[in-house]
Amino acid sequence: MPQDVLLSFSRDEYADRIERVRVSMEDAGIDVMIATDPSNMAWLTGYDGWSFYVHQAVIVFASGNPIWWGRNMDAAGAMRTVWMDEDRIVGYPDNLVQSPDRHPMQHLAELLIDMGFGKSTIGVEMENYYFSAAAHAALRATMEQARLYDATNLVNWCRIVKSETEIGFIRRAARISDGLHAHVLEMIEPGVRKCDLVAEIYRTAIRGAEDEDGPYGGDYPAIVPMLPTGVDASAPHLTWDDRQLRGGEGTFFELSGCYRRYHAPLSRTVYLGTPPDIWYRAEEAVLAGIEAALDQSRPGNTCHDVWYAFTRALNAHGFTKESRMGYSIGLSYPPDWGERTMSFRKDDMTVLQAGMTYHLMPAIWLDDWGLEISETVLVTDTGSQTLCETPRKLFVKP
Amino acid sequence: MPQDVLLSFSRDEYADRIERVRVSMEDAGIDVMIATDPSNMAWLTGYDGWSFYVHQAVIVFASGNPIWWGRNMDAAGAMRTVWMDEDRIVGYPDNLVQSPDRHPMQHLAELLIDMGFGKSTIGVEMENYYFSAAAHAALRATMEQARLYDATNLVNWCRIVKSETEIGFIRRAARISDGLHAHVLEMIEPGVRKCDLVAEIYRTAIRGAEDEDGPYGGDYPAIVPMLPTGVDASAPHLTWDDRQLRGGEGTFFELSGCYRRYHAPLSRTVYLGTPPDIWYRAEEAVLAGIEAALDQSRPGNTCHDVWYAFTRALNAHGFTKESRMGYSIGLSYPPDWGERTMSFRKDDMTVLQAGMTYHLMPAIWLDDWGLEISETVLVTDTGSQTLCETPRKLFVKP
Repeated sequence: MPQDVLLSFSRDEYADRIERVRVSMEDAGIDVMIATDPSNMAWLTGYDGWSFYVHQAVIVFASGNPIWWGRNMDAAGAMRTVWMDEDRIVGYPDNLVQSPDRHPMQHLAELLIDMGFGKSTIGVEMENYYFSAAAHAALRATMEQARLYDATNLVNWCRIVKSETEIGFIRRAARISDGLHAHVLEMIEPGVRKCDLVAEIYRTAIRGAEDEDGPYGGDYPAIVPMLPTGVDASAPHLTWDDRQLRGGEGTFFELSGCYRRYHAPLSRTVYLGTPPDIWYRAEEAVLAGIEAALDQSRPGNTCHDVWYAFTRALNAHGFTKESRMGYSIGLSYPPDWGERTMSFRKDDMTVLQAGMTYHLMPAIWLDDWGLEISETVLVTDTGSQTLCETPRKLFVKP
Repeated sequence: MPQDVLLSFSRDEYADRIERVRVSMEDAGIDVMIATDPSNMAWLTGYDGWSFYVHQAVIVFASGNPIWWGRNMDAAGAMRTVWMDEDRIVGYPDNLVQSPDRHPMQHLAELLIDMGFGKSTIGVEMENYYFSAAAHAALRATMEQARLYDATNLVNWCRIVKSETEIGFIRRAARISDGLHAHVLEMIEPGVRKCDLVAEIYRTAIRGAEDEDGPYGGDYPAIVPMLPTGVDASAPHLTWDDRQLRGGEGTFFELSGCYRRYHAPLSRTVYLGTPPDIWYRAEEAVLAGIEAALDQSRPGNTCHDVWYAFTRALNAHGFTKESRMGYSIGLSYPPDWGERTMSFRKDDMTVLQAGMTYHLMPAIWLDDWGLEISETVLVTDTGSQTLCETPRKLFVKP
């Protein structure tokens, strides 16, 4: 490892992670695991760069250190971020990038064959943005005698219980999230352009925040700020434009601070003017749902249990929700801050453990408006804790 | 189309785009094209939302309007952004999202079978972040009698020559890019935290700029700001941290303004203090390379011609470059602002035409430092034009 690599976690913590993955690999009968998800790559090695738009991976073996594999020009970035020695960093030449003739995965396949894994069982992440259908086909065609095994989310599941250091990072992200909402509440009023609000949100997010150890900077969140207004709030994933906000409309803000790639998403809704009564009824329903969910969020209960308690409370207040009301969060790269493991919905029987973190996201999207009030939750030894401190309510600015 | 959809382009322009794609489909023998690249989806229909982290697509047929297909909750976003009528917007239920049992592509396959395309030739984008290996497998398994044809970049190639409106959008992005670099030059000095520079870059990018038609807001760029310093600048894709800048180091800034998803990337390098002589020699080499490239950028010449002229000039000044020195740009979503069509490198025989736009990116990354000076270039009827106005030089702040 080069002298001045600043690792985010101890070498022991990385060793423990590799060990967890090896146990899962052994359970699944996998000899070699190819992790292409940038979040998995970062969690396993410390690698952190915006290079996932080209093919790259971390390869985990039953013994020996993992290998970082990627484009030659990014191997320099690996040398500056990963805990392994230089001999575990392998680059491929630039003429493989977006080449019509040869796929980078052929290079990786040949490397594995040379290492003696040509007839092994190879775990791949079939359902991942960064493992394309063409990558799979190229690996398949070059490693004819290997068995490719769908190990989607195998590494993600190893990430579900967070260490103390990881929780510390999420707490730092949560302070940033609180700062974002405080700033929005201060700025928002009729006549403000949506893009100017977003500009301030980004500025605040990247400047970071401060805790007892001093100030710290922020990282880019895995999802851009979402803040649809009025009828657009029925469409949760539209991004901003440069129109001015008007009175008599509600806007929800789904935002997350990010610290060293760890997230703490938080949503709040702001109404400019006097909201129709139904908004207050929706607020009441959502708050009751959140209380019921938090009450059931404790080690031993399942995601289904939490969903059930939430749904009963929501329904008792006359509202319903089709989509899941929460999901695991932590380390992430674009385009999604969800960890893609547990979902809080019917029949998800994942058992909660202390150290899990999730986004409790009981949004209600109706035909021509939407209300979002959400929390980042840490499961503790005895129950749960919300990590942000922004008041949990519908904000009304007359 | 709902009353208040604000389309970015005329209905005629969308019709022309569909027609271009149909010609390419016919040439390739494709009956139905499934476009999963969010840039292609936006270009074909106007759809614009941060929803590409779940499966979605635009389906183009030999006749009739295209279909927008995606998650139910995002169908509401499609209703508010696309030019087609509501009956061409199809949603799938939320229980297909990240479900271990059933893949959203099964839903799409069943839709196509119901429409009578069960035995047709279906174009898919095998090499795309948003068409996973699992998506391909699910489509394959459900449409057993169909022929899946690799139509990677078929739609991208239809996008390569930009319309007047598109060029106008890129010009607007270019004004934002100029503003970013002006702001960086103003702020940068020893002691400034890297994250505070990025915070200002984001703020400026999203607030937007102004032209003869008035002020306009900015959109999120498809790549985050890159600004590695010192030794890190040998690793082009590392992102920022919260350390302070120091004298005696160079930092390059690879930034792009974005307007309605159109980009105008621009890189400049700033040295704090007095750079070693080799920096000036590198500057001279890169500027000579850019001049040579611009001189060859005209209709009728190939990417190879431009690359060759550039390389000769660079080599004559004692420098070499392995990676491509430019690529097509325009409409993009994360994680890449490249259009994935022409690359300016050896043997790329794409013939330049008026209306093409590219990022002329002659970066030099050496063992322990790097220099980037780049331009966004428009190919005109008679030659080429750079779209930004930031002085083309190595900036030195003593």
